[in-house]
Amino acid sequence: MSKDLKREALAYHAEPVPGKIGIELTKPAETLVDLALAYSPGVAEPCLEIARDPDLAYRYTGKGNMVAVISNGTAVLGLGNLGGLASKPVMEGKALLFKRFADINSIDIEVETEDSEEFIDTVARIAGTFGGINLEDIRAPECFEIEAALIERCDIPVFHDDQHGTAIVTAAGLLNALDIQGKRLEEAIITCLGAGSAAIACMRLLLNLGARRQNIFMLDRRGVIYAGREGVNAYKQEFANETDKRSLSDAIAEADVFIGLSGADLLTSAMLESMAERPVVFACSNPNPEIKPELALQTRDDLIIATGRSDYPNQVNNVLGFPFIFRGALDVQASVINDEMKVAAVRALSALAREPVPAEVLAASGAKELSFGTDYIIPKPVDRRLLTHIAPAVARAAVDSGVARLPYPHNYLQP
Amino acid sequence: MSKDLKREALAYHAEPVPGKIGIELTKPAETLVDLALAYSPGVAEPCLEIARDPDLAYRYTGKGNMVAVISNGTAVLGLGNLGGLASKPVMEGKALLFKRFADINSIDIEVETEDSEEFIDTVARIAGTFGGINLEDIRAPECFEIEAALIERCDIPVFHDDQHGTAIVTAAGLLNALDIQGKRLEEAIITCLGAGSAAIACMRLLLNLGARRQNIFMLDRRGVIYAGREGVNAYKQEFANETDKRSLSDAIAEADVFIGLSGADLLTSAMLESMAERPVVFACSNPNPEIKPELALQTRDDLIIATGRSDYPNQVNNVLGFPFIFRGALDVQASVINDEMKVAAVRALSALAREPVPAEVLAASGAKELSFGTDYIIPKPVDRRLLTHIAPAVARAAVDSGVARLPYPHNYLQP
Repeated sequence: MSKDLKREALAYHAEPVPGKIGIELTKPAETLVDLALAYSPGVAEPCLEIARDPDLAYRYTGKGNMVAVISNGTAVLGLGNLGGLASKPVMEGKALLFKRFADINSIDIEVETEDSEEFIDTVARIAGTFGGINLEDIRAPECFEIEAALIERCDIPVFHDDQHGTAIVTAAGLLNALDIQGKRLEEAIITCLGAGSAAIACMRLLLNLGARRQNIFMLDRRGVIYAGREGVNAYKQEFANETDKRSLSDAIAEADVFIGLSGADLLTSAMLESMAERPVVFACSNPNPEIKPELALQTRDDLIIATGRSDYPNQVNNVLGFPFIFRGALDVQASVINDEMKVAAVRALSALAREPVPAEVLAASGAKELSFGTDYIIPKPVDRRLLTHIAPAVARAAVDSGVARLPYPHNYLQP
Repeated sequence: MSKDLKREALAYHAEPVPGKIGIELTKPAETLVDLALAYSPGVAEPCLEIARDPDLAYRYTGKGNMVAVISNGTAVLGLGNLGGLASKPVMEGKALLFKRFADINSIDIEVETEDSEEFIDTVARIAGTFGGINLEDIRAPECFEIEAALIERCDIPVFHDDQHGTAIVTAAGLLNALDIQGKRLEEAIITCLGAGSAAIACMRLLLNLGARRQNIFMLDRRGVIYAGREGVNAYKQEFANETDKRSLSDAIAEADVFIGLSGADLLTSAMLESMAERPVVFACSNPNPEIKPELALQTRDDLIIATGRSDYPNQVNNVLGFPFIFRGALDVQASVINDEMKVAAVRALSALAREPVPAEVLAASGAKELSFGTDYIIPKPVDRRLLTHIAPAVARAAVDSGVARLPYPHNYLQP
């Protein structure tokens, strides 16, 4: 990051007031009459109604449009375990994105514990306050058991965005890239560099979309995760194939797809050259992709490359997913964000990239031209159609899969 | 409550959006440059700064002006144990009052547990998120141990408003009433009907202000709490006097002061007649005071009466205290709200009632005349001078008693 950007980022957070989010009143609170309705004595009425029927909390409180962004700060961005408090700017930032992109009220909660049971108990006890919970920046493998336990204990959507948000956006881009390259996910040989929460969730979702387990080769710091390797946790074990491949060079030779979620620039030109023809490379580590797009495109011209960066084409950015996925889930009061809803989000995001791009999206994204192809496999974050494409798809999938408390809304998000 | 008020209160909470509070962005978040500062990659900078020096959370996040209103719903208004979720309208209402009266961002958190240890652990683990914690509607005696444990474990103010807010506002009014009646707190015989959290806190604060323990007679549902009575918890035990008094009639005879925090209309004309000359009666139960002001003033004309209701003079209303007490505490980053700060709030609130009332306060409160005397012993909630009188007094007391991280601000809250 440049010195200028560092200085600007600190100033942005400090001035004119500290932080990025505050509270606003959504009801009049000026006169004594207002206050008698908002607080004593009027407030007793909604309390009694909710005591009678807990579902009425959605009618009389802000619960239904409030998402908590919760972290213990054990895996903050790529910076490691900074603890809860130091993760607060990220969590407030995520809350800002929820509001900005999907008009969801969102508040951060930092939990000071590294103990999974303590974290789970804490979040489960306060979950009723919210309409949904976005878990963030919790390290693997704890994030898996934490999310699973909270989904089990809570009757609202609990969604670890580092896993599923990344997986959904990656999968949407990958489906389009494979299509352009004339390949099918069912036959693609996939090398996944990285075995953390995002990598595991990505590969699980690709399996769900039709990828074959025996075609996936996952690598952690120690190399390929193969059947029989020692010291492999249960989550990585899901992807332990019978194979002689041991190194990244072994794994990537003849691969159709490379997914990098490793945090390091480990991909060389030689490796790239060893891939199958018309390969797809997702070099998603930030700020340093596994290979620089310039170098990749110099090395071979038959590839499609995506990164996590906004200054190259095909940015894999979670903000393309979570605001709209939660929007759809909240609007039908889904009790969970299930696989059907995740797949619906993938399909909707994929489909949107194939539609003509309106002039205002072009202008806002600063691009000269955007048309479906090797340099545009995934929509831009500034595209306001994301809301009207993804949220309805997710809401519909929630209703159809039986996890929504409300019916699909009439004329939902139609202009 | 009238049918109309009930209907209006429900409509107020439900329309046009559910609830009363939402999130607002306090920084620009429109352009790609904005987003690069608010989130990735810029947000890494404040994270690293806070990891280096945790106090910088006050500079780079909203922590310092965010108060959590936290309850488990075990004593919601006068309605009893409704549970966390059904208490949410009250907690959102309290958050609304923090914003409306003192521009403090405030969010409610409902904790679903009746176990004190679980509650304490939960709140302590998320406390770092906030600049202060307002506990609300937690039943006695658990509220005492919960507050004490959280004050011990947290480095931010933890304040159970049902206790201290009520105590501060009551004490401020009582000091003025005694003065008008020509009596001194040090000599006053005080009957306290009620032995819950508010009553205990009130009497503790009065002791702190000079009242004598042997002059206080506290009653619970079973009558006077006297030395040697069985089945009295440790908090009530503090006020167990050596006395032959057993009933409310016994206790109120010759009393100078009656404080009612009982939840029932138990005070009769005959009891009132048995009090000392020029008595002070705080009949604070809501919505039904211990005795109706009309009846009290018919019974004798030498008394001063205060209630919890806005439709009579002398309303004891917590909103006169907590927004401004927290404002002062937050503005000097106090680590606690200690006795010195509470006493400073009492003195400032008392003093404000003795000042001439500006025309706009008269207009906003709907009163024809307000001048210090039997019908005006305490300021009105609509009085905007509360902010500039109480917050500076509290901040000054925090600095002087050594619990503030910041010095007293230059020209603090001066116009």
